Order: sequence, then C-alpha cells, then structure tokens
Amino acid sequence: MRLSTRNRLPGTITEVQKGDVTAKVTLQVGDNHIVALITRESAEELGLEAGQRATALVKATDVMILTDEGLG
Amino acid sequence: MRLSTRNRLPGTITEVQKGDVTAKVTLQVGDNHIVALITRESAEELGLEAGQRATALVKATDVMILTDEGLG
Amino acid sequence: MRLSTRNRLPGTITEVQKGDVTAKVTLQVGDNHIVALITRESAEELGLEAGQRATALVKATDVMILTDEGLG
Amino acid sequence: MRLSTRNRLPGTITEVQKGDVTAKVTLQVGDNHIVALITRESAEELGLEAGQRATALVKATDVMILTDEGLG
Amino acid sequence: MRLSTRNRLPGTITEVQKGDVTAKVTLQVGDNHIVALITRESAEELGLEAGQRATALVKATDVMILTDEGLG
Amino acid sequence: MRLSTRNRLPGTITEVQKGDVTAKVTLQVGDNHIVALITRESAEELGLEAGQRATALVKATDVMILTDEGLG
Repeated sequence: MRLSTRNRLPGTITEVQKGDVTAKVTLQVGDNHIVALITRESAEELGLEAGQRATALVKATDVMILTDEGLG
Repeated sequence: MRLSTRNRLPGTITEVQKGDVTAKVTLQVGDNHIVALITRESAEELGLEAGQRATALVKATDVMILTDEGLG
Repeated sequence: MRLSTRNRLPGTITEVQKGDVTAKVTLQVGDNHIVALITRESAEELGLEAGQRATALVKATDVMILTDEGLG
Repeated sequence: MRLSTRNRLPGTITEVQKGDVTAKVTLQVGDNHIVALITRESAEELGLEAGQRATALVKATDVMILTDEGLG
Repeated sequence: MRLSTRNRLPGTITEVQKGDVTAKVTLQVGDNHIVALITRESAEELGLEAGQRATALVKATDVMILTDEGLG
Repeated sequence: MRLSTRNRLPGTITEVQKGDVTAKVTLQVGDNHIVALITRESAEELGLEAGQRATALVKATDVMILTDEGLG
C-alpha cells in the first residue's frame, strides 16, 4: 500500500480522549507530542489506546513554517 | 504571541524548492523529515533557506492516525 | 453561483449525528459513503437530516492518493 | 516570530463555546464574523474569552473562491 | 444553494497569478488581504480576474487563533 | 495497515499533470471525477499514471456539505 501523504511521524499513543462526535489522540513522537482531532468513529474502529504504536500522517499542504521562535 | 495550533515540530530546513506559485520546504525534525507546501511568496518573505532553524506547525484537525504500519 | 472547489460528490444523507460543538454527517455517494465533520451550527442552519439530497464538497488540496490497496 | 501563514484577520472574540473535545470560537473581523473550530485544550491554554482581541489565521491552501453570490 | 462553510469574506480580487498547476488569487476584504491557493483549472473555469467581486470561503476547522500579536 | 481517514473513493486515474513543485491528479470515481493536488515528489514516488487504479482519501474534517444545488 502506498500513500501520497509525505509526512509520517511514528510514535506512541499517550492519550485518547473520546467526545460525543470527535476524539483527541495524543502521540509522543521523539521529543515532540502530536495532537490529532479525528472522528470518534475512527478512534473506535482502529481501537486506539494509550501505549499503542501509531504513526501521525500529515499532508504537505497542511504544514506551516514558523521562524525566529518566541511562540508562547 | 500565543497560537492555538498545538503541533509544533522544531527542526532545521534541509531544502527549499521554489516553483512559480508554490514552494516546497523540507525540514529535518529529529529522525523524521517533514515536507511543507506553502506559497512562494511566503517562502521569500520569510527568507527561508537550507540550514536555517524553523518549526513546522500543524493544526490538530489536519493530523491522521495510521496503525499496523506496512506503508510503502 | 460558482465555486473554485472542484470535487463535488452528490448523494443522499444517511445519518446526522450532532455533538455539543460538532456534527458528523454521513452521505451515500454511489457505492461509497462519505463522512463530513462540520460545526453543529452549520448542520442546524442547513436543517440537515437523513434522506435529504446533498453534495459533499472537497478542495483539491485536501485529497490524498493511495495505491496498491490493502488498507484495513 | 515569523509565520508562513499569509491570511491574518485581526478582530475581537464574541463567543467561545467549549465542547468535550473541541471548542468553537467566534470572532468579529470588520463587517464579517469568523468561526474557528479548535481543540478545547487550545482554547483553555490560550484563555480565550469574549471581548478579547485575537487574530484568525488561515493557510492559503485552505481558502476557496466563490463568485456570483446567491449563497443561502 | 446553501453551504455548510461558515466563513464567508466578500471582497474584490486584486491579483490572479497563474502557475503551471496552481493559481494564487489575492482578494481585498475590508482592511485585510486574503490569499487563496487553488488549482489553475479552477481559476480559469471561474474566469477569475483583478477587479472582480468574489467571496473567500474558509471551513471552520481550518481557522487558527493567535493572541498577543507580535507576529512579523 | 489501518488508517483513521474515513473517506475512501476507489477509482481510476485519468490524468496526471506535473508542475514544478505540485502535481494535479484526476481520478474517475463512479460517475464523479476527483481532483487531487499533491507534491510532484509524491506523484513521482508513487509512479502515478493514467489508467492506474487508485483510491482518493479525504479526512472527515475536510468535507463540506452543499444543499439545494444550483452551483455553476
């Protein structure tokens, strides 16, 4: 299976918070943590849970660039 | 300055490829490389170039989750 | 009225699930079903309900390509 | 701090509606009102509340164009 | 015709820059200018040109919030 | 391999147009055609070409809903 999405960040799920319609999934990827907002349905169908290995995928058109830090 | 965008991946720019309207910016972030597609105008206004420290920003609604790897 | 968004998938709403802030709308489009995550406010203002004809719209920059299936 | 995101709409927050996982933030920007769907976590960390000055940011790849109005 | 996209910014096109695959469209919306990156095909089919009235559309999930300005 | 992205539209590539940085890929999916804007690099790495079977993937947060057609 091959996917056009270039950005793949393998890590470990640290938290899955399920709401009524959406779910927030947090991963630890190296020194960074990544938060994903997906549908609750997806989170349940994939059986996502803390401690599980997973990869965060991001399309190139969705990445912004920040320089000269200083972001609170 | 404080931004609602949760996902911040600090790294170093390894390549900036400018097209007529868009620009592709590649960063090394820990063990991963991240590709961003932005407008050429933005790349030039920020003076982005290889070797520069920069942070990739991604909104939580734009992150997908992949499990059981096997992605070519 | 003319819209730059190229991808238009006409179908029939099969389910509208309203959360506190968001709403999940499922459409049947030919042999496929499409899930949209919109604000609850939008779902209510448009009066979306099962059985209604509607069109799913997707911007070209938001479409990814997968080849050699095998996706669970 | 410099950001590649071109579209910046300074305004005033008129409403913050917090759900279990997401939050809907409404701003008045000139004659227009803008709705943002972000994570509840972001809304709380930024301490967003009605009356506060804030800027809506939108990536160029996320903007669509509509002509010959007539949109209900 | 009714659309779930909440954010509608009516303005005037000030520039259309066509690349090989994409097109950058700039609008003046009140005191702000908005840049959209769409496909060249869309720009041509809509016959977009400077001086034309048009509306920028943005989905709520694509809007980020910035506070305490100071953004270069 | 399992992916949180709910919307999967299997079809056949009818055209691949490569620009300097981006590529426009058109698929026929049932009675509809779908246009994807991806990086040229992705299109080349996946070896995308007309006649090939492929699936268009779209995240639920990127789908908008239109009712009472009348869209030019």
